[in-house]
Amino acid sequence: MGSLGPYQRKLKVAVVGSGNWGTAIAKIVAENAAANTDIFEEKVEMWVFEENVEIAKDSPHYDPALEGPQKLTDVINRTHENVKYLPGIRLPANLHANPSIEDAVKDSTLLIFNLPHQFILKTCEQIKGKILPYARGISCIKGVDVNEEGISLFSETIGKTLGIYCGALSGANIANEVAQEKWSETSIAYDPPHMDSKAPTPQRSPTSSQVDLVQFQHRDTSGEISKVKLQALPSDYPPINHDALKRLFHRPYFHVRVVNDVAGVSISGALKNVVALAAGWVDGMGWGDNAKAAVMRVGLMEMVRFGDKFFGATIDQRTFTEESAGVADLITSCSGGRNYRSAKHSVERNLPIEEIEKTELNGQKLQGTLTAVEVNSFLKKQGMEDQFPLFTAVYRILQGTMQVAEIPSYIER
Amino acid sequence: MGSLGPYQRKLKVAVVGSGNWGTAIAKIVAENAAANTDIFEEKVEMWVFEENVEIAKDSPHYDPALEGPQKLTDVINRTHENVKYLPGIRLPANLHANPSIEDAVKDSTLLIFNLPHQFILKTCEQIKGKILPYARGISCIKGVDVNEEGISLFSETIGKTLGIYCGALSGANIANEVAQEKWSETSIAYDPPHMDSKAPTPQRSPTSSQVDLVQFQHRDTSGEISKVKLQALPSDYPPINHDALKRLFHRPYFHVRVVNDVAGVSISGALKNVVALAAGWVDGMGWGDNAKAAVMRVGLMEMVRFGDKFFGATIDQRTFTEESAGVADLITSCSGGRNYRSAKHSVERNLPIEEIEKTELNGQKLQGTLTAVEVNSFLKKQGMEDQFPLFTAVYRILQGTMQVAEIPSYIER
Repeated sequence: MGSLGPYQRKLKVAVVGSGNWGTAIAKIVAENAAANTDIFEEKVEMWVFEENVEIAKDSPHYDPALEGPQKLTDVINRTHENVKYLPGIRLPANLHANPSIEDAVKDSTLLIFNLPHQFILKTCEQIKGKILPYARGISCIKGVDVNEEGISLFSETIGKTLGIYCGALSGANIANEVAQEKWSETSIAYDPPHMDSKAPTPQRSPTSSQVDLVQFQHRDTSGEISKVKLQALPSDYPPINHDALKRLFHRPYFHVRVVNDVAGVSISGALKNVVALAAGWVDGMGWGDNAKAAVMRVGLMEMVRFGDKFFGATIDQRTFTEESAGVADLITSCSGGRNYRSAKHSVERNLPIEEIEKTELNGQKLQGTLTAVEVNSFLKKQGMEDQFPLFTAVYRILQGTMQVAEIPSYIER
Repeated sequence: MGSLGPYQRKLKVAVVGSGNWGTAIAKIVAENAAANTDIFEEKVEMWVFEENVEIAKDSPHYDPALEGPQKLTDVINRTHENVKYLPGIRLPANLHANPSIEDAVKDSTLLIFNLPHQFILKTCEQIKGKILPYARGISCIKGVDVNEEGISLFSETIGKTLGIYCGALSGANIANEVAQEKWSETSIAYDPPHMDSKAPTPQRSPTSSQVDLVQFQHRDTSGEISKVKLQALPSDYPPINHDALKRLFHRPYFHVRVVNDVAGVSISGALKNVVALAAGWVDGMGWGDNAKAAVMRVGLMEMVRFGDKFFGATIDQRTFTEESAGVADLITSCSGGRNYRSAKHSVERNLPIEEIEKTELNGQKLQGTLTAVEVNSFLKKQGMEDQFPLFTAVYRILQGTMQVAEIPSYIER
């Protein structure tokens, strides 16, 4: 590729977060930054929440010259391995672990967010005003924030807090498998207003290049819409468009499709967990593969309907039925994911699912049970429970007011 | 329901075929005919290819008064069980086994075809001119007839031969599970020209009720189109429309969605077997659930593309992505179907798939391997192999000119 591109500056990438999935994604973008130095700075920053780690004496990374606990960032930068959160995986040498989030993001044009969702707001507030005003973001955080009042996309929370545009990445991916370079696919959704030079022109966006306002649509019952002033990327940078994102994320073992539908990609990742509970119950009942496929199909249709009802203006239903973030992630989650397995066990052992959460997940709540309750409170407030019979059945079964055996008759129409 | 409907005559149903799936479907339509006598004759005919059966002395159906081999139709009518092809399942008393196909179909308004595809043409020629000229058909025969020259739908073969309109039924169904009333879903596609009173009006059909011509589009490279004169159903019959078909096929354990897209429903049932081979290979490689979901998603997209390229005028891509005949049947076939299992074994044991066919299937060819070869010869002739990389990869792996490990790079784009 070389550095003969027509742009005076290059895109600099920072990954915010360094857990299991954060480090796996950082590995990918660092590999691609090194392979595409015509548009990317080779060095990629990864913010690491600093902690001390002990290196065991039998570890290949043990260094007798270094005694006692060591800083995780130092270990990563010395050994090129995140020994704590992604052990056994060699990271590219151009990936730099940085304990200072401000330093990691300060001159980056592309911020990749990959941290537990409960830390998003706090983290964004910490770097607010300390990033390039024309930076762009990609959220790799699964799911959405649903409550009785409305649905927020994490990408919108990030975008609103920082005053930047933020897209989303989601797909049928398991961090460890991606890190081991087992083949999978993912979806990236990115659809900023047409203001960056050579950015793709989604049909529904304004065509004028003078636009500097993005309307973040925070969907709630009050119809509140937050507006954020966006700054265009200076023209001496390569444009941050679908092509650039594909070059940053696509690997031979990690196939990327870039689409425009941020809401669809995000809500798929939340709602599929609700469907996975139903699939697990049906399998636990021993009803066979066809019944399971039926409940998955009905669930997929309710995901489409949910998107259409609440994000109708911006959603593309093919995100659910054709993309990795949709149908493929649903298939994976209903094959062996945690929600599916726990639901299956709960039927097989005739235990409420909270018992499984207590005994097998150390009391941690399943994402599917949380989302099912949140989605139901929202649907109930909208008076729409009966338009989503499978989601409603899942909620009622969790509440103990419906039996799994009633699913077919309840969703029959 | 009673018999207080506004119509002087009722719809009479005959099932042509009485194998495993034929008998399971006959059970359903007989149950529904008995429950909906306002529009259906209660008695349902089922044509049975006559043969002699021996009833074992320890069978509950053994009758010491009857010595030696008995006729299968007599046994079915006496015991209400198809002891040969669907043993252990109680059939409704209003289902009549008839050894004479001419007698079974002669005054039936609805003919349900459910027999092995190699017998379709011969059977239709046998009853040609001996049925009601305004009868309608539903083909429950899976798949399509593909060769180098083109693709024929079995429903079209039936319709052309008999001079009637024929729809199709296909879904994620296993005969024995449906017979045992395990819950599943299916798709029925039915879209005749708008000539029967109160028939649904598909947007693409002529709106005049005077139409008496149906163009059966036999898709081949010569562009041949066969036309068949259709007779309207007399107005003293209840109309044969989506509602009537739902009342005839939908059961609490067998959920039916009726759509217009006959081609989509039919070709899904063939192409999913090709995808199931790829899913089996990927699983055999131990690449994990995400790789399998990826190959299924890519396969689903090629099914959509295939429909769009070759049946573009009549196809609805949602048939593939939203209906039981599409995505759900694909999921089932990639979970535990014969094609999937054989492909998985062939990788795990490092044997060509023909070896598996020989040793585990008594030399019977898998539907998926046959279809993969047929589809490839057609695509090759169209010069379109590279637009269907997964289908092409499956063919080449079967031919031994590509390795399973090459799938990700071959379909990468």
